[in-house]
Amino acid sequence: MGTLLMNATRKAGFEGVIYAVHRKDETVQGLKAYTAVADLPEVPDLAVIVLPGRIVAETLQACGEKGIRQVIIVSGGFKEVGVDGAGSEEALLEVAEKYGIRILGPNCLGVANPYTKICTTPISFEGNPGFIGLASQSGSFIVQMYNYLSRKNIGFSTAFSVGNQLNVDLVDCLEYLAVCPHTKVIALYIESINRGAEFIKVAQAIVPHKPIVAHYVGGSETGRRAAHSHTGSLSGPDHIYDAMFKQCGIIRVQSITEMFDICGLLGSMPKPEGRNVAILSHSGGPAASAADICGRLGLHLPAFTPTTLEKLSPFIPDTGNANNPVDLTFTRDIRDFFLKIPQILLEDKNIDMLLIYLFMPEEMMRLRMQSNGMSEHEIDKIVEQMTQVIEEIAGELRRNYSKPIVGFTYRSVDEPIHKALIEKGIPVFPNPERATRSLQALVDYYEIRERFS
Amino acid sequence: MGTLLMNATRKAGFEGVIYAVHRKDETVQGLKAYTAVADLPEVPDLAVIVLPGRIVAETLQACGEKGIRQVIIVSGGFKEVGVDGAGSEEALLEVAEKYGIRILGPNCLGVANPYTKICTTPISFEGNPGFIGLASQSGSFIVQMYNYLSRKNIGFSTAFSVGNQLNVDLVDCLEYLAVCPHTKVIALYIESINRGAEFIKVAQAIVPHKPIVAHYVGGSETGRRAAHSHTGSLSGPDHIYDAMFKQCGIIRVQSITEMFDICGLLGSMPKPEGRNVAILSHSGGPAASAADICGRLGLHLPAFTPTTLEKLSPFIPDTGNANNPVDLTFTRDIRDFFLKIPQILLEDKNIDMLLIYLFMPEEMMRLRMQSNGMSEHEIDKIVEQMTQVIEEIAGELRRNYSKPIVGFTYRSVDEPIHKALIEKGIPVFPNPERATRSLQALVDYYEIRERFS
Repeated sequence: MGTLLMNATRKAGFEGVIYAVHRKDETVQGLKAYTAVADLPEVPDLAVIVLPGRIVAETLQACGEKGIRQVIIVSGGFKEVGVDGAGSEEALLEVAEKYGIRILGPNCLGVANPYTKICTTPISFEGNPGFIGLASQSGSFIVQMYNYLSRKNIGFSTAFSVGNQLNVDLVDCLEYLAVCPHTKVIALYIESINRGAEFIKVAQAIVPHKPIVAHYVGGSETGRRAAHSHTGSLSGPDHIYDAMFKQCGIIRVQSITEMFDICGLLGSMPKPEGRNVAILSHSGGPAASAADICGRLGLHLPAFTPTTLEKLSPFIPDTGNANNPVDLTFTRDIRDFFLKIPQILLEDKNIDMLLIYLFMPEEMMRLRMQSNGMSEHEIDKIVEQMTQVIEEIAGELRRNYSKPIVGFTYRSVDEPIHKALIEKGIPVFPNPERATRSLQALVDYYEIRERFS
Repeated sequence: MGTLLMNATRKAGFEGVIYAVHRKDETVQGLKAYTAVADLPEVPDLAVIVLPGRIVAETLQACGEKGIRQVIIVSGGFKEVGVDGAGSEEALLEVAEKYGIRILGPNCLGVANPYTKICTTPISFEGNPGFIGLASQSGSFIVQMYNYLSRKNIGFSTAFSVGNQLNVDLVDCLEYLAVCPHTKVIALYIESINRGAEFIKVAQAIVPHKPIVAHYVGGSETGRRAAHSHTGSLSGPDHIYDAMFKQCGIIRVQSITEMFDICGLLGSMPKPEGRNVAILSHSGGPAASAADICGRLGLHLPAFTPTTLEKLSPFIPDTGNANNPVDLTFTRDIRDFFLKIPQILLEDKNIDMLLIYLFMPEEMMRLRMQSNGMSEHEIDKIVEQMTQVIEEIAGELRRNYSKPIVGFTYRSVDEPIHKALIEKGIPVFPNPERATRSLQALVDYYEIRERFS
């Protein structure tokens, strides 16, 4: 664990000095290693302790004596393993109070901040710095999300693994993330909240400025027991947390997928002016299914204005339908589907958001080109150009219209066209339910914000 | 459209004779083309009509005169476009009744049957023959799912695009799929049901033998309007359909994703004896989140028997937790995580199903090997071997235990290890909510079946 942490911390590109302390080894990964904290040539700003639980307290004591005031304790074996462990947390607290040390953990994976390049996590940071500030009682939802978020082209501003929340808890993290300039949206993974009153006060002050999205797992019996054995949390009943989240204006989610879907939209999309969605599709079924899901989530599909219908008319083949959801059945020019029609829909005053069903124009075009006798090489070239065109269009749409635009597909979201859209700020979801739930949460947040202001 | 259809139909490898009929061209895709249906040298078993709406009736008449009794009408422009269109459906019906023709469509994409190799759809069939029998009012949910299903290693037995349901409707398809030997589970995409009483009667007779999963989109206002402009359907209120599905023992789903997730499990997994799940994980947070989702969906996480705890004990490091959910924190040998521990859990009499959180053992191993100074080539080779080992293990687990096993991950489900598992019959979902919802539906079905028997 120490090896992994040191490796990942160095890989993150931290520009200050990193000291290794090791009881026996003279070097650690090529760095000179000091036998004891006392031997260090200066007082570090932060110590990361990755040692067996039984010697953590004495090491913390050594840190305190050295003058270190910020410590991350990765080591487990405390409150989460029961009475014996809980005993040693007392010992840690005593040392912390004596020296005024702030401790993240124990039983945590530290912090990841790609801006300051401090990533003291056992897995190397992957992806780009982003806008999601996370405070999590699970370190996995930091390190195991690097890859996940980077595939969605979003990322963390800062992520805190709070572990057993000894003397830095979710409330402290909220206070930090509230003023962090890189954080546009705050995500919380919660197994239990220790300081309820403070949590409410701080969250209520944040929500009018920054959205907070929370996944609380202690509310079900199975979740409560799992949380207890994970971080020693004593979770509270679901309805209490539910009411508390409502009181704070926090958007509650039931999964990690939902959490980051919604965070992605909240941090990247303009404010929707209302609940009205236009759906653009080549296919009736996926459009109808998406429309149904919109309806169930309280989003509307209004009729278009006569002007819009008139402008759409030249683009709609006989087999198609210009009403909302627009079902083109087919288009001959990708610019129609990706640029001209979206422009018309986004200019409609009845429309607040655009949802596009993406069905492999690439594959259709490939088939058509194949049957026209073109070679694979020629086709590849054209597809590449087409992907570029779509990328440009996506950028143009996002720049010129301050209305949320999202896509969904049943194909892989990793296909080049989808990647191009994601890259240019149009998220592509693997189904309409996730796209629509995210749009709903976006609308909800701005409604909450108005109520709170 | 005709070109695409002919191309895909031929590509599907149909072993009978395909005749082309074209008013002007002498050949179609290298096939001799006949000027009129009357000129055909024999009476085909099936005609597929892809012509402008206004000449469909006379062509159907020609088919009738020739002696053709099965016809697929792909052409649109009928009921779905309003009064004018509805007029011509009457004309079609008259011809159909006169000659006793059964018509699939109009406004449909035909049928896909990879066993008989009849795939009269505009997009070529992709993937393997499977066990899902689909009847759909959207052709897209056939052709646009070939790729989707093949990535999940499942597939259609037969899929019917019923379009406007002129004289072959969902009920007819149900009757066919009920006795189709390749169909293990029936999926329905519904915008409206025309023959309610018959639907209920037929469905109730099927459910004790084969599960039926339905996605009905006409229940919300937005879905109803979208369905109407798609297939001219007059949908009924949600609560009526909901009650009808319950009365039939049909599993209702709110999306296509959910539909095929559940179909996949229903067609491939053994019957779970109860609602008890064991969760196996390397990480506490994902385990707790999955446990919470299980609880919300009415699945239980029972305590393990003392025997199980004893057998688990040597595999659980100090940092880990042997209780359900099992949180290993780490394992040194992939055989422990993928074989030995699952075996112990599956042998526990309290456990009916196993849910495994998959967190990139590949990446962890790669990192470890890199830091041990191994070359990329050496690492690739080991990873390949490891993937093979996991594939073998997956097969072994599925063969030796008649309890459902599923996985979930936040990484790409297309990664080699996940693909190996999927290939060997252990589905890997991109999040715990989809995995858990599918397990829940599996349990639900067998409970329904008992009530109905």
